[in-house]
Amino acid sequence: MLKHNFSAGPCILPKEVFQEASNSILNFNNLNLSLIEISHRSEDFVQVMDEAISLTKELLNIPENYSVLFLQGGASLEFLMVAINLMKKNGKAVYLDTGTWSSKAIREAELFGKTVIIASSKEKNYNYIPKKYIIPKDANYFHCTSNNTVFGTQIKDFPKSPISLVCDMSSDIFSRNIDISQFDLIYAGAQKNLGPAGATLVIVKKDILGKTGRMIPTMLDYRTHINKNSMFNTPPVFSVYVSMLTLRWLKKNGGINWVQTRNHQKANLLYKTIDSNSLFTGTVNREDRSTMNVTFLLNEPKLEEKFNSMWEKSGINGLKGHRSVGGYRASMYNAMNIDSVQVLVDVMNELEKKA
Amino acid sequence: MLKHNFSAGPCILPKEVFQEASNSILNFNNLNLSLIEISHRSEDFVQVMDEAISLTKELLNIPENYSVLFLQGGASLEFLMVAINLMKKNGKAVYLDTGTWSSKAIREAELFGKTVIIASSKEKNYNYIPKKYIIPKDANYFHCTSNNTVFGTQIKDFPKSPISLVCDMSSDIFSRNIDISQFDLIYAGAQKNLGPAGATLVIVKKDILGKTGRMIPTMLDYRTHINKNSMFNTPPVFSVYVSMLTLRWLKKNGGINWVQTRNHQKANLLYKTIDSNSLFTGTVNREDRSTMNVTFLLNEPKLEEKFNSMWEKSGINGLKGHRSVGGYRASMYNAMNIDSVQVLVDVMNELEKKA
Repeated sequence: MLKHNFSAGPCILPKEVFQEASNSILNFNNLNLSLIEISHRSEDFVQVMDEAISLTKELLNIPENYSVLFLQGGASLEFLMVAINLMKKNGKAVYLDTGTWSSKAIREAELFGKTVIIASSKEKNYNYIPKKYIIPKDANYFHCTSNNTVFGTQIKDFPKSPISLVCDMSSDIFSRNIDISQFDLIYAGAQKNLGPAGATLVIVKKDILGKTGRMIPTMLDYRTHINKNSMFNTPPVFSVYVSMLTLRWLKKNGGINWVQTRNHQKANLLYKTIDSNSLFTGTVNREDRSTMNVTFLLNEPKLEEKFNSMWEKSGINGLKGHRSVGGYRASMYNAMNIDSVQVLVDVMNELEKKA
Repeated sequence: MLKHNFSAGPCILPKEVFQEASNSILNFNNLNLSLIEISHRSEDFVQVMDEAISLTKELLNIPENYSVLFLQGGASLEFLMVAINLMKKNGKAVYLDTGTWSSKAIREAELFGKTVIIASSKEKNYNYIPKKYIIPKDANYFHCTSNNTVFGTQIKDFPKSPISLVCDMSSDIFSRNIDISQFDLIYAGAQKNLGPAGATLVIVKKDILGKTGRMIPTMLDYRTHINKNSMFNTPPVFSVYVSMLTLRWLKKNGGINWVQTRNHQKANLLYKTIDSNSLFTGTVNREDRSTMNVTFLLNEPKLEEKFNSMWEKSGINGLKGHRSVGGYRASMYNAMNIDSVQVLVDVMNELEKKA
C-alpha cells in the first residue's frame, strides 16, 4: 500500500534517493564494495563529501567567504557549539524564543555568558512569531529558529541585525529562497529536507571565528572542521552520501525556486481546507504559518476516532500532533508530492460531509 | 569480482548485514516505509535501539550497574567527554601513550586539568605496549587505548588500576573476551566491529558520574543520554540499526567466544606467514601484536610494484599501511573470513617463490 508520510522528522525523502541509497549498501560505484565498508579517505568517498558541499553552495547560492560543514550531533550539539565559538569571555548573546528548540539553545548558551531573551511568544503557547523587537548592538550574536516543527510557526522575514545573525534552520533549510549573506551562521540537522539522521549541516562566515578569547575543545571548534573539510575524524558516511543524493534530486528538478513553488502549493491547499472546513481550526496566526509543518485541531473531540481511522486507512502516516499542542500536525517536507496532501484534504472533506 | 576488504575502518561488515540494511532502506519491518523516514520515537525504531543496547549487554556480559549508550561524534568527541565528565576541578588524569589516538585523547583532557603521561612507546615509533608502570592513586582516572589501528599494537593484559580505568576500544571491542567490571568507562566508534560510521558506543559505570563539581553542557553529559536511553535528541538511526544487525549476526554465530577463536586463527595464519616468509618483516613486538590490524614491511622496495599488482589482482582492498608506519596493514575485523586471509597469504608466498 502506498504510504503518505507526514512524519515531522526523520521524514520523507525522494523515492529515487531511497532506491539509490539501498543499492549503494550492496555495491557502491561498481566497486563490489558497500558504501559503508570503504575508507572515508578513499577517493570514492572524498568525492561524495566534496559533491555534498558543492551542491549545498550552489543550491543556496552561498558566498565565497562562507564554509559548509557536515558534522555530527544534530542541532542539539550546535546549541553548544554556537555559544562556545561565538560568545566572547564575559560576553552576551540575544535569543528569540519561539518554542522548544529556542529554549534548548538558550540553556546551553547560559553556560558561556549572559543570555538575553529579546522577545518570546510563550504566553500564547508559541502560536505566533514575535516581531518589532530591537536587537542590541552590544551583544555577540542574535539567535533565532527559522521554523518551529512543534508549533508550526515560521519566520517569513528575518530581522536586519546589527550583530551576527545566527539561525537554526533544521526544519526548513532548502525549502525556500533565503539570502545567505544576511546570516553569519546557519545550522541544521539533516533529518528533514536533507537526509537521514546523523549529519548536521553548518554554514559559517569564516571571519567571525576565533574571536572569543576562550580555549575551545578540538571537536567543538568550527575551525577544526573547516581546516579538514569536514574530515577531521570519520564523518557519518551514509548520512552525508544520502544528503548528496537528495541535493542532486533537488538540483535536477529545478532547485530552490522549483521546490519553493511546490511547497507553497502544498501549504496553500491544506491551509485553505483547514480554513474552509467547519470541523478544523489552525493553531497558528495566519501570517506566521509554516509551509513545512501544519498544525490544526479537530473542533469536536467525538469525531477524533473516526477521523483517525479514515486517514490511517488511506495510507497516511505520522499525522498526530506533538503532545504540547495536541490535535494534528501535517509535515510536508520537500520530498512530499501534492498528491499526498490531496489525499489528506480529501479525507478531511469527506469527514465534513459525513459529520 | 569477490573483494577481500582489509580496510582499517570504516571496514568490512557481514554480507548478510549489508543485504538486510539495503532492504530496510526500501521497506522497513514491512511498514512500506524506509527505515530512514520513520520517526525515531516510533515503536519500530525504539525497539531497534532497545535491542542494540540489550545485545551489547548480553554479548559483553555487562554488569547491571553499567549503562550502554549509542551517541554521535566518534571517539574524537569521547576524548573530550571523558575528561569533562570524569576530571574533577583542579583534578588530574593519567594516560598511557600508545600512539596517535592516545595523543589526541590527552590533548583534549589538558583543557580540563592536569594530565600525566605515565608511560609511552613513542621512542620506538609505538611498536610496543609499555608495561610495568605504576598508576598513581591520586588521579581521577587512568586512560588507555586497547588497540592501535595505525601501529598494529594491542594491549593483551589490562593493568589493575586503583582508580577508574577508562579505555578507548574503538578498534577491538567485540573481538575478544574482556572482563567489563575491570573498567569504569569504555568507548568505541562503531565503524570497526560494530557498524557504519556515525555511532559511538559508550559503556559506563553509573556511579562514577556527577562527581566533578563542574557544569557540563547537556549534550556532553553522559547522564543526559542515560536518562533518555540514548534518545535525548534524534539518534543516528541507520548506524544504530546496522549495529544491531551486526550484533544479531555475532550472537547467532556463537558470540564473543566464537569470534575470538576465529580472530586468533586469522591472526596466527598471517603472522606465521610474515615470520616464515623471507620477504616480509612484522613491525610490532611479538607479544604486543594486534589480532585486528597486522602491520608489516616488504624488505626489498624494488618488489613493491609487483606485490601491489599481485594483491590488487586477487581482489584485495585496503592493504596500504598508514603513512606514519609505511609498508602494509591488513585489518581483519570480525566479519572477515579466514578465506580472505588465505588469499593474502597465498599472494605473499607466491611472491617469495617468484622473487
